[in-house]
Amino acid sequence: MAGTITSNMWVWVVENRSSGRRAYCRQIEPAQQFGDYRPEALGALVKWRDVWAPALRAAVKNMGGLPLKQIIIKALQMGDEVHNRGIAASSLFANAVAPALVKSSLPLVQVLDTLGYVGNHPLLFLGLSMASAKSAADSARGVALSTIVTAMARNGTEFGIQISGLPGEWFTAPAPPVKGLLLPGFKEADAGFDMGDSAITETVGWGGFALGGAPGILSLIGGTPEEALAYSKDMRRICAAQSQEYLIPALGFEGTAVGIDIRKVVQTNIVPVIDTAMAHREPGHGIIGAGIVRPPLECFTKALKRFGEECAARRVEPPHA
Amino acid sequence: MAGTITSNMWVWVVENRSSGRRAYCRQIEPAQQFGDYRPEALGALVKWRDVWAPALRAAVKNMGGLPLKQIIIKALQMGDEVHNRGIAASSLFANAVAPALVKSSLPLVQVLDTLGYVGNHPLLFLGLSMASAKSAADSARGVALSTIVTAMARNGTEFGIQISGLPGEWFTAPAPPVKGLLLPGFKEADAGFDMGDSAITETVGWGGFALGGAPGILSLIGGTPEEALAYSKDMRRICAAQSQEYLIPALGFEGTAVGIDIRKVVQTNIVPVIDTAMAHREPGHGIIGAGIVRPPLECFTKALKRFGEECAARRVEPPHA
Repeated sequence: MAGTITSNMWVWVVENRSSGRRAYCRQIEPAQQFGDYRPEALGALVKWRDVWAPALRAAVKNMGGLPLKQIIIKALQMGDEVHNRGIAASSLFANAVAPALVKSSLPLVQVLDTLGYVGNHPLLFLGLSMASAKSAADSARGVALSTIVTAMARNGTEFGIQISGLPGEWFTAPAPPVKGLLLPGFKEADAGFDMGDSAITETVGWGGFALGGAPGILSLIGGTPEEALAYSKDMRRICAAQSQEYLIPALGFEGTAVGIDIRKVVQTNIVPVIDTAMAHREPGHGIIGAGIVRPPLECFTKALKRFGEECAARRVEPPHA
Repeated sequence: MAGTITSNMWVWVVENRSSGRRAYCRQIEPAQQFGDYRPEALGALVKWRDVWAPALRAAVKNMGGLPLKQIIIKALQMGDEVHNRGIAASSLFANAVAPALVKSSLPLVQVLDTLGYVGNHPLLFLGLSMASAKSAADSARGVALSTIVTAMARNGTEFGIQISGLPGEWFTAPAPPVKGLLLPGFKEADAGFDMGDSAITETVGWGGFALGGAPGILSLIGGTPEEALAYSKDMRRICAAQSQEYLIPALGFEGTAVGIDIRKVVQTNIVPVIDTAMAHREPGHGIIGAGIVRPPLECFTKALKRFGEECAARRVEPPHA
């Protein structure tokens, strides 16, 4: 039924081929996803359900899946931080899927509509980013004695993290406000506290961690290119490694910081940098702004305390950072 | 005849809609364009002639032309300098042309072949960049008493410039060598002197002038991100203005320097920065490297001297810089 969202909604399925872990994400439609449920905001999701998603499903199935890693590697060298700025990744994904859309046996009008959709949607890749990050982060769950963060998520009330060595346990603290730029007509008091699952992208070293390579996003979130470069460098101090594959040209092709270690966070008092959108505190609005949010240090101190207890219970020496 | 290049070769046609000026560029095929004429290097041009260009012609005609300015504006915010790095512009162009290719009445096999070509060609946009720049620079020709550079070109022997107030006159000096990175197997002595028409992109403020926003190209031409930012800032000192539309996020969304003024060049001793590929001094090779080249100051001093003579002949006071 046009104009009505039923419970059937296509999602992106991303598989981490090293671990076999799969993660899922719905398609992001900017107006609706922040709580705007007017018919015009729902329209794109209706078309997603009825037109675009079935076409993309046919195309991607026809391709036997579409590798995302090379797209992400390229996009990080094209000014995306692959969280809130995914214009390059979206464009490259559209290029990659186009021939398979045409080869499908779908009606021409559906092919053309879908080509137009994927070729003009700067946030097309956002759901794919999140599912890619989730499938990678989940692959790191459950390593004995590992103090690496495997999830960061927020629900508008609490900010929570998980670590690899204590899978399934949340360490939470009150969700902070987002600091950044508001869209015209909104004021700081309109914004809810930090909310959403998207910080899974920072968990694997994209988003705020790659901000130095993505100054184009600063018109959305505020701040200077120098601050953005400093964020990316700072994140190395709390991470176990730098990626050998996800490289940032603006930082001399050095790799993104990856593997947030709660011990390093507590030692340095440096918490992760997340760039994120702001939702209104009341339902019925679209996005009202975007900015930077830092998780409460308390999440990390709680996790480290619990990790120490676990080491004591197992009678092992906690590993040094 | 497959395998043979005849004199028929499709070219890109770019029209500057403000001035009505048109410029043309052949499609760039990296192996062949530097002088490699082996059959495997010519293969892509044969397909360009027989398959891809006719398909693109049909698509672009069907669209009534394809606006390039928004693509260039976006690409400059996606890490392209729109001369030797055009991966974002190429990807956006491929997205824009895809629906029209599919709507054309061409055989499906030709549509698919062309979609695959445009969607995977990081230099697709180079010919369009050059023709765009040429149509813009030509629009500035012939302004009385203008000391703005309207062309920079090199033929492997000489470097030449033209200025707006003296249209058609070349001011030349010996072509310098290019300083940068050589591909494996080549040494500095293999390289010819600076060659090609592509510096028309720098003439309108792209390429070396926008290098601060395109650190991804440094793996090709050498140098550091800091040097790239400094080049872009330096170019402001020899230009009449900064673009209001071509913005560089890494420079706080300031506009590219545009309108090289020979008076400012001579006053400051700062010459334009051009990033460019290196050709072998002998025919039969593909690209052998890439780097930075600076035009000889002599081109600018010659032009300024001749400009002064012209002012004297017309009995007008030379305008101050």
